[in-house]
Amino acid sequence: MAPDKAVVPLHVPGLTWLPSGQSALSGDLLELDDRLDGVFRSWAGQRGAAAYRVPTFIAASDLARLDYFYSFPHLITFPVTLEASEANLARFAEQAPAAGEVRLTETAPVRDVLTPAACYHFYSLLRGRALPGPIYLTTRATCFRREAFYVPLERQWAFSMREIVCLGTADEVKAFLEAEQARVAGFAARIGLPLEFQNATDPFFNPSRNPKYLMQKLEPVKTEMVFQGRLAIGSLNFHRNYFGEAFEIRRAGAEAFSGCVAFGIERWVGAVVRQFGPKAGDWPSLAQ
Amino acid sequence: MAPDKAVVPLHVPGLTWLPSGQSALSGDLLELDDRLDGVFRSWAGQRGAAAYRVPTFIAASDLARLDYFYSFPHLITFPVTLEASEANLARFAEQAPAAGEVRLTETAPVRDVLTPAACYHFYSLLRGRALPGPIYLTTRATCFRREAFYVPLERQWAFSMREIVCLGTADEVKAFLEAEQARVAGFAARIGLPLEFQNATDPFFNPSRNPKYLMQKLEPVKTEMVFQGRLAIGSLNFHRNYFGEAFEIRRAGAEAFSGCVAFGIERWVGAVVRQFGPKAGDWPSLAQ
Repeated sequence: MAPDKAVVPLHVPGLTWLPSGQSALSGDLLELDDRLDGVFRSWAGQRGAAAYRVPTFIAASDLARLDYFYSFPHLITFPVTLEASEANLARFAEQAPAAGEVRLTETAPVRDVLTPAACYHFYSLLRGRALPGPIYLTTRATCFRREAFYVPLERQWAFSMREIVCLGTADEVKAFLEAEQARVAGFAARIGLPLEFQNATDPFFNPSRNPKYLMQKLEPVKTEMVFQGRLAIGSLNFHRNYFGEAFEIRRAGAEAFSGCVAFGIERWVGAVVRQFGPKAGDWPSLAQ
Repeated sequence: MAPDKAVVPLHVPGLTWLPSGQSALSGDLLELDDRLDGVFRSWAGQRGAAAYRVPTFIAASDLARLDYFYSFPHLITFPVTLEASEANLARFAEQAPAAGEVRLTETAPVRDVLTPAACYHFYSLLRGRALPGPIYLTTRATCFRREAFYVPLERQWAFSMREIVCLGTADEVKAFLEAEQARVAGFAARIGLPLEFQNATDPFFNPSRNPKYLMQKLEPVKTEMVFQGRLAIGSLNFHRNYFGEAFEIRRAGAEAFSGCVAFGIERWVGAVVRQFGPKAGDWPSLAQ
């Protein structure tokens, strides 16, 4: 998928764009980021969600349980270090740096992945647990997805994701997702942000060969919050009992169901700027 | 260096430890983390420091300017992706996962590094600028250093660093560092945290062969905040005009000097728990 040429790149004070697909935020833009996340956190708080700070890396063995390497190899970023012998480090240290590119010498075994989605940590943390009732969790994490091209705030190698997650029975999770969708819709309407909810699928590698993709086509489980008809700035996801099964989490005598509401913070920031302009004075109040 | 066997590992509610050298925080421990960072942010605010959210990766070309690859190859973590051809991704996707370890197929060129210190981003952001007066900046960033062993909250592959940075003339930077050291000392004394300030050097690879290490031995530029005589939970660093020269930042007609106060947030959290116990009710008030 190529960039949409009809969409002019954002130039806004407080945004520094790195060609590696990352942004630095400051000033009003950073405040907008904090205020938006504050709204989402307040929703999590109303659910009684337990707040976590999760690690940047997730164990490859956890992602392997989810067939992640089969489904999304094109998106993955690995944290790689050099094999730690003095001779190997010296070989690396003494080479002249090539223009912009680093030539690695021997590398250490790779056992981790840069987190691709904030909520994966929760299923791993809850492994083997039996839940006495539905539970709600929240975190904001930097997530990493390698893409074919990057666009400031809209498509980044590294980006911030706020998630509110529910684990429970199928009915408990469905009720959560319905209520949260209504809450997001009401908020968007109130601040004047044009948002539509559309069924979607995850960006599988070789989708036509992946039974998970075919299943998502048959029974939609992902609803995106689509801004201006073109950009998903968040999503609501019904995982069925997929994570409960993979991590042996139980609820009411069966594998737990789960679902999450996920907000791409930079995309929300970008959407506000696109809709209301670059001046903070023109942005809507986000007070609840 | 092996773990200090006299120090019992921390077991505290709200801490989940991953053997990869990372922690997840929740509950009182996460609140303590936020409150400590709030103190450091308030100090930054009193300086009028501009707040930034900086990227997770930093360009290898920026670190090459600082001879980082020569000085610290043992600490570096690289973000590595797979070469993006469909054949290469399919080869990766279809292999059976080995126990915990991922076997990469062909990888894409490496041009970035997982940020090893929060303040490096600022020198890159200010590249080529002439500063009309001293400037102050602050950020909290996840930083990455591969170590030979890890200890919960005390020695992590990924950890949080809050920095307050000053760029200016030598005198402006020295005055900043002196005032901040006094502020940290006063705060530690008030909350009852035993902290000593000790000269230190950075953990260079092959130190005896590195002129930078020898220079640091001759003229100390790093002062650590040492808790209970054994663990640096922060540091004050006088960089001379090193970054000003590398990134052509000028102040008062010459290369800018710089310095930073850096707080290892998880280490501060761990220090409070070591000193006052695992119960939040026993922790000191951090109100300013």
